[in-house]
Amino acid sequence: MKPIAVLALLATGVAIAQPPPRDTLVSPEIQSDKRVTFRVRAPNAHRVTLFGAWMPIGSEEPMTKDTEGVWSVTVGPLAPNGYLYTFNIDGVTVADPINPDVKLRQRTSASLLEVPASPAAPWDVADVPHGSVEVNWLKSRVIGDTRQVFVYLPPGYDKQKSRYPVLYLFHGSGDVAASWTQAGKANLILDSLIAAKKAVPMIVVMPLGHAVPFGSAPEIQAKNLPLFEEYLLKEILPWAESKYRVAPGRRNRAIAGLSMGGGESSNIGFAHLDLFSAIGVFSSSGGADFANRHKAVISDAKAVNAKLSLFWLAMGKQDAGYARGKQFADLLEQNGIRHDWVETEGGHVWAVWRWCLAQFAPMLFHT
Amino acid sequence: MKPIAVLALLATGVAIAQPPPRDTLVSPEIQSDKRVTFRVRAPNAHRVTLFGAWMPIGSEEPMTKDTEGVWSVTVGPLAPNGYLYTFNIDGVTVADPINPDVKLRQRTSASLLEVPASPAAPWDVADVPHGSVEVNWLKSRVIGDTRQVFVYLPPGYDKQKSRYPVLYLFHGSGDVAASWTQAGKANLILDSLIAAKKAVPMIVVMPLGHAVPFGSAPEIQAKNLPLFEEYLLKEILPWAESKYRVAPGRRNRAIAGLSMGGGESSNIGFAHLDLFSAIGVFSSSGGADFANRHKAVISDAKAVNAKLSLFWLAMGKQDAGYARGKQFADLLEQNGIRHDWVETEGGHVWAVWRWCLAQFAPMLFHT
Repeated sequence: MKPIAVLALLATGVAIAQPPPRDTLVSPEIQSDKRVTFRVRAPNAHRVTLFGAWMPIGSEEPMTKDTEGVWSVTVGPLAPNGYLYTFNIDGVTVADPINPDVKLRQRTSASLLEVPASPAAPWDVADVPHGSVEVNWLKSRVIGDTRQVFVYLPPGYDKQKSRYPVLYLFHGSGDVAASWTQAGKANLILDSLIAAKKAVPMIVVMPLGHAVPFGSAPEIQAKNLPLFEEYLLKEILPWAESKYRVAPGRRNRAIAGLSMGGGESSNIGFAHLDLFSAIGVFSSSGGADFANRHKAVISDAKAVNAKLSLFWLAMGKQDAGYARGKQFADLLEQNGIRHDWVETEGGHVWAVWRWCLAQFAPMLFHT
Repeated sequence: MKPIAVLALLATGVAIAQPPPRDTLVSPEIQSDKRVTFRVRAPNAHRVTLFGAWMPIGSEEPMTKDTEGVWSVTVGPLAPNGYLYTFNIDGVTVADPINPDVKLRQRTSASLLEVPASPAAPWDVADVPHGSVEVNWLKSRVIGDTRQVFVYLPPGYDKQKSRYPVLYLFHGSGDVAASWTQAGKANLILDSLIAAKKAVPMIVVMPLGHAVPFGSAPEIQAKNLPLFEEYLLKEILPWAESKYRVAPGRRNRAIAGLSMGGGESSNIGFAHLDLFSAIGVFSSSGGADFANRHKAVISDAKAVNAKLSLFWLAMGKQDAGYARGKQFADLLEQNGIRHDWVETEGGHVWAVWRWCLAQFAPMLFHT
């Protein structure tokens, strides 16, 4: 027991517990020129490297050790946005031990670096009215557990009696229900767009996109899409429409997602054009089975085009899934199905997905 | 670039990104007898240890390496509850790299271990109606930034027109605004108590308790309490009472906190007996200055006792701040101020604070 090490006496005399011993190390440190220095104290380590979401997958930045055992590296300048990063210390990949901004994931930790823009980007905390994010714990009979559903409510939701259109927004495979708000800043993006009158006030419903356990064997994982579809349509939609002041009808419903969530949004959206009028697919595709699965719908492009006011596909040029995404757009093109195919700089990363949402949301619910 | 390593093709044909390479390691693994095995893959490490919140501060559990470079240790059986833990790998303290349940903190990472109880403890996810947690982003003129305020709304809040009493609940020094729900499970505790009719339905408002930056020099840190008091009374209370359906008056307001937050609740509560009718102090005290600061109030025990329906102090017997907390209770005793002093097994840990809330909440708002 070392009580002295864990109790500090404030000047006010209030005893508080603190992690012993205090360390004044700073990481990450963002310079004014947007270069960023990462530091980790590991005096016994032989090799320490950095990997960040702005780097090509499989690459690494070697870090160098100073006389006090602190390893560091300076990178950039980086484009203002949010980036996941990890350290590898003698073969163990870890989050930055002193950065409080930890990206919550299905498995393995990473840290979040936020490089703010000037003027503020849509995902920065700006001086605009802020909506709120309501976290619900919902028992699912379809899936058999109690799980979180995150719901963005626009500024003034509690003050006004209006009904709002709804975007159903799905995360990627490594993510959790918190990801679109924690890493994606979906709420801040909507706050900014609504304040600038670029997007109409809307509700955003963000369920957990895993209907089978993450990391399941392929034969189990194959059940994720149909089970998630059932969960979404039988439980989430009716619940959201009964709990929140939701504007009725398909014109007021959009569906979008990133990576795995883009596979969910394209497939569920296409199977239920009676329910959704806009689809967003970020860094994803409909999957290799899409043409088969939706044969009848695809063959009647005229009916699809009459129903979908927006079918928006976006892909980072450096995304490992680029070719697959482009193939999907080609399939739509060949069948005369109206869509947008947008390419942007970047890989399979949150910087791209924040940008996607900031582009996609303003196009919704104008009819 | 190693695209093969990061793209897995689902049986459904939907391409998803995954952390390369997949690792089937499990940590933590909870045995049926409540013993727990921790594992970390660190083939190049020379010494790996575990520290967990069930252990005395300053102690460690050495871990042993198998032929595949996986270090492990089995501990317990542990009493069902939630515990922070960290690994130390060759001198670097890190969260468990593969446990997704990361405890968000002001600085430094830790992981959370949840040992479920049977039958369910109040903090376990039980089959009861669940309230929600609304995360608000509020601009503070007092503090000069935009910060989160977490608000628990009891089950049925959106369905009923009732007004609800409010508990203002504060976290500890190392914590963030999410801590009382993420690590403390305050919402699940209230859900369970309300379902069992042990507590009345209430709103719980959980602001960020740091009004000056965490880790500030002592002369800055000394300003935290008065600044937080101003923030709470000028901004949080009026905002909460205007946004939520709050029952009016001091009989419907309680204030409580853990560690640093207990210093805040005791001092702010005592200075504003006109605003609060119940005070909870978990693993804390009023601070060495309390008698001086509240001289006039303390000298009139009769008036205090007439106003406070509950003044509840709880302390873990193994808490490094035990003596300070007991001194505070003695000060109250000597001055004839009615209070409860409750001792429990445990240190300065979330297992104790969950228990505290589960004891405290049922005593509130019966008048």
